[in-house]
Amino acid sequence: MYGAGAMGALATRLMTEKDVEIVGAIARNPSKVGRDLGEFAEIGYIGVPIEADAEHVLATQRPDVVLHATQSFLPEIQEQLTLCVRHGANVVTISEESLYPWSSSPAIAAELDALAKQHGATITGSGHQDSFWLHQVSALLGTAHRIDSVYGKATWNADEYGAEIIQSKHVGETLEQFQESINSESRPPTFGGNLLAALAQATGLTPKEWKTEISPVVAEEDRHSNSIGTTFSKGTVIGYSDIDVMRTVEGPTFTFEMSGYIFGSGESDMNQWVIKGEPDLFLDNGVVPSYTTTCTQWVNRIPDVINAPAGFVTPDQLPPLRYRSMPMHSYVTPGILT
Amino acid sequence: MYGAGAMGALATRLMTEKDVEIVGAIARNPSKVGRDLGEFAEIGYIGVPIEADAEHVLATQRPDVVLHATQSFLPEIQEQLTLCVRHGANVVTISEESLYPWSSSPAIAAELDALAKQHGATITGSGHQDSFWLHQVSALLGTAHRIDSVYGKATWNADEYGAEIIQSKHVGETLEQFQESINSESRPPTFGGNLLAALAQATGLTPKEWKTEISPVVAEEDRHSNSIGTTFSKGTVIGYSDIDVMRTVEGPTFTFEMSGYIFGSGESDMNQWVIKGEPDLFLDNGVVPSYTTTCTQWVNRIPDVINAPAGFVTPDQLPPLRYRSMPMHSYVTPGILT
Repeated sequence: MYGAGAMGALATRLMTEKDVEIVGAIARNPSKVGRDLGEFAEIGYIGVPIEADAEHVLATQRPDVVLHATQSFLPEIQEQLTLCVRHGANVVTISEESLYPWSSSPAIAAELDALAKQHGATITGSGHQDSFWLHQVSALLGTAHRIDSVYGKATWNADEYGAEIIQSKHVGETLEQFQESINSESRPPTFGGNLLAALAQATGLTPKEWKTEISPVVAEEDRHSNSIGTTFSKGTVIGYSDIDVMRTVEGPTFTFEMSGYIFGSGESDMNQWVIKGEPDLFLDNGVVPSYTTTCTQWVNRIPDVINAPAGFVTPDQLPPLRYRSMPMHSYVTPGILT
Repeated sequence: MYGAGAMGALATRLMTEKDVEIVGAIARNPSKVGRDLGEFAEIGYIGVPIEADAEHVLATQRPDVVLHATQSFLPEIQEQLTLCVRHGANVVTISEESLYPWSSSPAIAAELDALAKQHGATITGSGHQDSFWLHQVSALLGTAHRIDSVYGKATWNADEYGAEIIQSKHVGETLEQFQESINSESRPPTFGGNLLAALAQATGLTPKEWKTEISPVVAEEDRHSNSIGTTFSKGTVIGYSDIDVMRTVEGPTFTFEMSGYIFGSGESDMNQWVIKGEPDLFLDNGVVPSYTTTCTQWVNRIPDVINAPAGFVTPDQLPPLRYRSMPMHSYVTPGILT
């Protein structure tokens, strides 16, 4: 387990319930280092100390696969992934950019791909996007004779993902401050762009033109954040929407609107897709438990990542995600672990 | 094209729009024999006469793949599929039982499987079920850590599929006649049973116990059938629901309720799945264009069926259905057609 946050804690329980042997845990936060991962995850002692020295953990424990959850963007995590791969470990990361890094960080992706091949390891990005935004949607698009446009909308509650995420969402700014921040900062690529590139790949279409808009989400009444214990007054920015538009050489336009903000009571994560073409198509996942499904997909992907060929293998190249009714190791191709 | 009904007509247009070369058409109905398939499909003359002698068409035209749409059950179509396979043709059929015949007609499926292998041909069942009931649902189930129960509900408008289908749905009977028919007739296996068996296969669960209930759908007010031009009075049977329940050795229960009846105005086909477990999951496809998607999936499966290994290969064993942006032949593995 590389990274010990909320996601790592939940995945720790899910893995132990599917008989995955956890051999090591890495985190830098001094308040976590030295603690037992099981106790950190509130499932009781499992004899796996959280350690700060990643290289030491990887070298001594030689894991078959690393579950990685630290930052979102490839430039931030390249060094960590490199370290894993150099020690021969497969990696499944919930870094959002890793879903399909070829569109936004092609050079780093190529470097990691070559390194992974050299060491016989696989790097894959999974998480909530894998089934809900990619595989369910591409399966739906497989029922189309002609696609004119694809529009997806997802919302998620930034309040459920910890203080670090909230700080990155411009929460608490005025609209003026938000515009200033947006104008002055060099924004990292959006995750929607990676998703749309993956969908283009899955539908055999060729991206031609990209556009990204950012739009603030503003509190319509006082809005309380449980995770940081602060109430933001009406009119304050409580998050934002990234709206990505991809045009393709073949014609169809893909739009994805992803809104992350602090939810009010009664709001829930959504995932909805509207396709225009022959025929018109629709998909809605109702109340989406994104928090949990980020972890379930991360964990359910373990055998696929072990079984996959070496390299940076994006989930559009993997078999569709499957339910794991048996202990996780029973899905691993016999003889593939050395 | 084996069978020239409403589905065959639509698929004919879809295929020509994806540059599929149609080489022959088979139907027995004397009012269709001799007509040009393109004219029958209302897309203009294409130079393909509808012929009654299936063997002659298969022997002279040697098709790479047969799109088959005659009856629903394997015992009814075994002879037709056998004929195709003996002539070395791959077959993709919308016979509902063929989605997963191993649960209901294992002996016939095994016979066809052996014959197909002997002749290097593939038989696959596709159609509406492929993505909407199987691949979208199994992709959703792939986000579960624990499944307790799966409940699916689909409705379809029997009025859209022609007179033969309506006659098989007990339409026009009184409730008493319906009960008598049900009690006296030996009912064929339900399609829901095949679907649940396919879902068990896709989730790695082991079916233990099966139960099927049939429940009439009764007109709550006068209900008009456009396809047969008859109005059925309030209280008349206008179709029925098949409710299939599958229990598994591992615990989870799967239920599928499929209701086919004559819709009233404002009603539309639906496809909705509710999963209880960790976490609870949900899927809804809104207004489902089942009529069109039966054909689009049938046609979009063509290259997968050609590319697949020989035998009776059910869609859970195929790659997920994909959108075809290019001419259909560009998805065929080079060199696989001899």
